[in-house]
Amino acid sequence: MRLAFLFYDGMTALDALGPHEILSRLPGAETLRVARRPGLVATDSGVSLLASSGFSDVPQADVLVIPGAATATSLRGDEDTLRWVRAIHGSSTWTTSVCTGSLILGAAGVLDGLRATTHWAVHDRLREHGAQPVAARVVEDGKVVTAAGVSAGIDMALILAGKIAGSDVARALQLAIEYDPAPPFDSGSPAKASPATLAAVRTIMGRSFEPRDGSRRSSAR
Amino acid sequence: MRLAFLFYDGMTALDALGPHEILSRLPGAETLRVARRPGLVATDSGVSLLASSGFSDVPQADVLVIPGAATATSLRGDEDTLRWVRAIHGSSTWTTSVCTGSLILGAAGVLDGLRATTHWAVHDRLREHGAQPVAARVVEDGKVVTAAGVSAGIDMALILAGKIAGSDVARALQLAIEYDPAPPFDSGSPAKASPATLAAVRTIMGRSFEPRDGSRRSSAR
Repeated sequence: MRLAFLFYDGMTALDALGPHEILSRLPGAETLRVARRPGLVATDSGVSLLASSGFSDVPQADVLVIPGAATATSLRGDEDTLRWVRAIHGSSTWTTSVCTGSLILGAAGVLDGLRATTHWAVHDRLREHGAQPVAARVVEDGKVVTAAGVSAGIDMALILAGKIAGSDVARALQLAIEYDPAPPFDSGSPAKASPATLAAVRTIMGRSFEPRDGSRRSSAR
Repeated sequence: MRLAFLFYDGMTALDALGPHEILSRLPGAETLRVARRPGLVATDSGVSLLASSGFSDVPQADVLVIPGAATATSLRGDEDTLRWVRAIHGSSTWTTSVCTGSLILGAAGVLDGLRATTHWAVHDRLREHGAQPVAARVVEDGKVVTAAGVSAGIDMALILAGKIAGSDVARALQLAIEYDPAPPFDSGSPAKASPATLAAVRTIMGRSFEPRDGSRRSSAR
């Protein structure tokens, strides 16, 4: 079983490496970290990760995982990336995204007519790609599984692990990474956060997300 | 405020990059990824990360984060690493670890007489270093904060963020990474997992952890 993680400059490291920590430990898993070309990619928190494969090295994968980024939408116009995403999706068993990675799936035309989720701050942007935004942590629609912001990728990966290898394996992986979360605050979703917290994060994210200007493209394939 | 993350071959990526995703976003944070020498380190899930600094480049940090690994104890005999850990701890505001990273702190002599935690599967090994194992997700003893297995680093980082920058900032960071966990199974701790799951993970981890043989060294400084 081959799992391909899209790596690209500006990506959010945890979006990819939460699921990677779990899915790479599935029995028989071969995990590939794939960028346009092999080499280092700089994430948005400063750490650089090695993409060991280029698009042309990986024409097929059983599972595709697309992480998000504050600048994920900059890939909307990147035809090399969108072509590769479409090609992998064409024969994948599972096509998945974390956070704003769903906007890349959307730009590739994968989400047209599907229910999907993304980071709460940009939920309505899924509509630009013909998707129906669903306010849930993980949304499945056929073989396409999308997760909400950043840390939701961990929950998604455990759900996928259960589907791929059975719930006994998924439970063992959960225990191996001691995933028994105990957040010290209860502020992890817009429904739970205070208005002040929500406003603060919207301001920060508004600055880092690209303007919704005329550079926006439709999801036409 | 300078935060130093120890990077080393064989480390578990999520141990470091969970906290890194949160702490790197603290106001005024300068995060450094430090290995014996600058360059790529290979993690135990296959992804390689770039250490941008070597030990000699970073003589001081306000926050030290030490990730774990199945082979964390192999660093017990690495005097270069232990000397650097002791030096940073000497003037840090917070000295922290995730998972078996606490065994590296222990080998450096940092945990002598302190309460601490680590991955549940190796809890009793803290005693080898004079520490008192505490079965908790995050344990604070003075300026030393230790987290349980892998994913516990995320909870620890939010606690630290609150201490360093105040709870409003920590709550905003929690919302930014949408950390509202919803594990699909309830198997994330030895108390919650079934006996069969526990036995399966113990077998896997027993294979990957080094034998507790005569190569064990005391925590004498």
